[in-house]
Amino acid sequence: MLKLEECRQRIRTELDNVVDFWLKYSHDTIHGGFFTCIGRDGKVYDELKYVWLQGRQVWMYCRLYRTIDRFHKPEILEAAKAGGAFLRKFARVSNSSGQWKCAFCLTRDGKTVKIQRTIFSECFYIMAMDELSRVTGDKDMQLDAEQMMEQLIYWVREDSSGLGRPQLPGDIPTNSMAVPMMLLCLVKQLSEGRGQEVVQKYRELGSWCVQQILQHVQRDGTVILENVSLGGAELPGCQGRLQNPGHALEAGWFLLQYSAEWGDKELQETAIKKFVELPYQRGWDTEHGGLFYFLDVDGHCPTQLEWNMKLWWPHCEALIAFLMAYSQTKKPELLERFSQVYEYTMSNFSDAENGEWFGYLTQEGRVALDFKGGPFKGFFHVPRCLYMCELILDDLLANKD
Amino acid sequence: MLKLEECRQRIRTELDNVVDFWLKYSHDTIHGGFFTCIGRDGKVYDELKYVWLQGRQVWMYCRLYRTIDRFHKPEILEAAKAGGAFLRKFARVSNSSGQWKCAFCLTRDGKTVKIQRTIFSECFYIMAMDELSRVTGDKDMQLDAEQMMEQLIYWVREDSSGLGRPQLPGDIPTNSMAVPMMLLCLVKQLSEGRGQEVVQKYRELGSWCVQQILQHVQRDGTVILENVSLGGAELPGCQGRLQNPGHALEAGWFLLQYSAEWGDKELQETAIKKFVELPYQRGWDTEHGGLFYFLDVDGHCPTQLEWNMKLWWPHCEALIAFLMAYSQTKKPELLERFSQVYEYTMSNFSDAENGEWFGYLTQEGRVALDFKGGPFKGFFHVPRCLYMCELILDDLLANKD
Repeated sequence: MLKLEECRQRIRTELDNVVDFWLKYSHDTIHGGFFTCIGRDGKVYDELKYVWLQGRQVWMYCRLYRTIDRFHKPEILEAAKAGGAFLRKFARVSNSSGQWKCAFCLTRDGKTVKIQRTIFSECFYIMAMDELSRVTGDKDMQLDAEQMMEQLIYWVREDSSGLGRPQLPGDIPTNSMAVPMMLLCLVKQLSEGRGQEVVQKYRELGSWCVQQILQHVQRDGTVILENVSLGGAELPGCQGRLQNPGHALEAGWFLLQYSAEWGDKELQETAIKKFVELPYQRGWDTEHGGLFYFLDVDGHCPTQLEWNMKLWWPHCEALIAFLMAYSQTKKPELLERFSQVYEYTMSNFSDAENGEWFGYLTQEGRVALDFKGGPFKGFFHVPRCLYMCELILDDLLANKD
Repeated sequence: MLKLEECRQRIRTELDNVVDFWLKYSHDTIHGGFFTCIGRDGKVYDELKYVWLQGRQVWMYCRLYRTIDRFHKPEILEAAKAGGAFLRKFARVSNSSGQWKCAFCLTRDGKTVKIQRTIFSECFYIMAMDELSRVTGDKDMQLDAEQMMEQLIYWVREDSSGLGRPQLPGDIPTNSMAVPMMLLCLVKQLSEGRGQEVVQKYRELGSWCVQQILQHVQRDGTVILENVSLGGAELPGCQGRLQNPGHALEAGWFLLQYSAEWGDKELQETAIKKFVELPYQRGWDTEHGGLFYFLDVDGHCPTQLEWNMKLWWPHCEALIAFLMAYSQTKKPELLERFSQVYEYTMSNFSDAENGEWFGYLTQEGRVALDFKGGPFKGFFHVPRCLYMCELILDDLLANKD
């Protein structure tokens, strides 16, 4: 049985090491912002700056600075501010309708390389600006975050044409898990501790997000599907049959947070049964251990070439989800699952030699891509997981008796 | 040592089996066109119709029908015509400038699902229409192919804005191997046997394509890089360091065809040394066998999650490239390489149980995705490889003494 105190110690040490790694290797002291393509030993192998990862790193630095004493250090605050300044200066670009879009990728000196026709760069921009404004007290940044949020809500709920994707007759509008999940995460970010006016402003949106997420429970409650129709029905083909266990688990702990905030016991139960236990049951590889990246609910082979790889982030989400579920219910089987995922994760992803975690393993658990940062892996899932788990463990250990 | 006669027999049998597989499982007799998402046992697991694969299947059917006696069968011609009719009716869509674009993906009944902002759907549309017009004698189709080709040349050499991709300040125009390769392939397709007027019309373009391809020989002739600047210089970062051995090998046999057509011995030598031998030397996995999908020239880990997988199509291209190089030079070491790739390919990709080939293996050679057709695997690389190898072997065996 897992010893919680030992576990907390390991998690603290891991978090310290991960923070040190990014403080040491990722800062661009010449142009501002962060390098995100960082090799196993810390060497930058590409200077492109991915906006998701810039925003996430600013957010994570600020959150650590603001909420954990040992990270309340000037160098972390300065790095976050420099990252935020880079984002504000270069990430926002105007689209053809004159709306603000955020770029997806920038050159080292901030020139736009690529713009995605989705909402996610904007989501991480908002997270960064809101959290940074909490640390600096800068009202302009807060306003920046709120304005971008208004636009994002408009794209999702009113008219998505500003994203630049043409409406095509065969492209049926879809409820993709990522969209309500990200919006729910932003609702929590923007309203936390902001007073009743803001809480009320986002209350209906939060409730809408939860309903949208619950639509992904399909086939009589036996599976979470990644994409459903706007009416909440199963979609045909591969897209409709797709399972993404890591995403479902992440949605699970978002719902657990929401249910705790609003005292919704029924939602808590649904979150645990459907979004925490089910994705584990369906997504865990009983042969080699670890969570699959993608699965087809009818057992067809997914068309994503990486479907059977073990990625770091679903394991991060699983750790948070099981530990939070346990802390809310004290059901021992949830702690056992946490323990199992924890063992797999620490043994396979954490790099004892050079610090930080590997991101991409083969199905068998061998390191397949050995960099610590890449176009989609930055200073986010690993430290957020360690941070959340540390907080939950602090709470569990403080209230042990 | 490989016995050429046995090898030809095996290749003929494989080609017959592969043709049978697609004739049996891929035809949509209700809406026309071809299903391309086909499981290991032939079952359709998704009804979406990918336009690259529709065009390629029409082309391949027609080519087999037109040039190999045993495939000169009405059912193959009818299938090709039905596929061509589906393409003409549904694949062409008008873009915002009123130019013709081709969709990337259609619903079963032909509604547009996705349009890529590249030239490749158009390339395979042209191949289909030109080859079909040779079989049917339909002048409208030939004109269709020629008009689309004019537009494609305009996009590549004059103004790419019609593709719909915004010009971004950090997105430096690039010479990607795929573009001159595809154009050179189309030059050969459109001019072959068409008479001097057409040959002359495309002569300058063919020569330009060859020069563009040769720009990818980098670092004093020691490596083929997938992306270079428009001026032929190495690009910074991952994009600049990327090697795609399968693509280089495919370019290799395109150059060998071109050099034979124009009697260019120097180009033949360059093609073999730089585009056939080098990609093999750099791309072959000496531990597990097979060609890597992507590699970084400086030994960094590529950021593509599938970099170390073994895909069917690079092996198809390697087989054609080595056998063609051998047939042009009779150098025994080229036949040895062919033999090595042939052994690996037949042992690992060909499915003795249900026919056709698997497409995606792990680095170690285990089947990772078990379908026979998917969004990027259709009736093309496998039959084209078997067809080309059969023709070359016929020629080698006929002129043995």
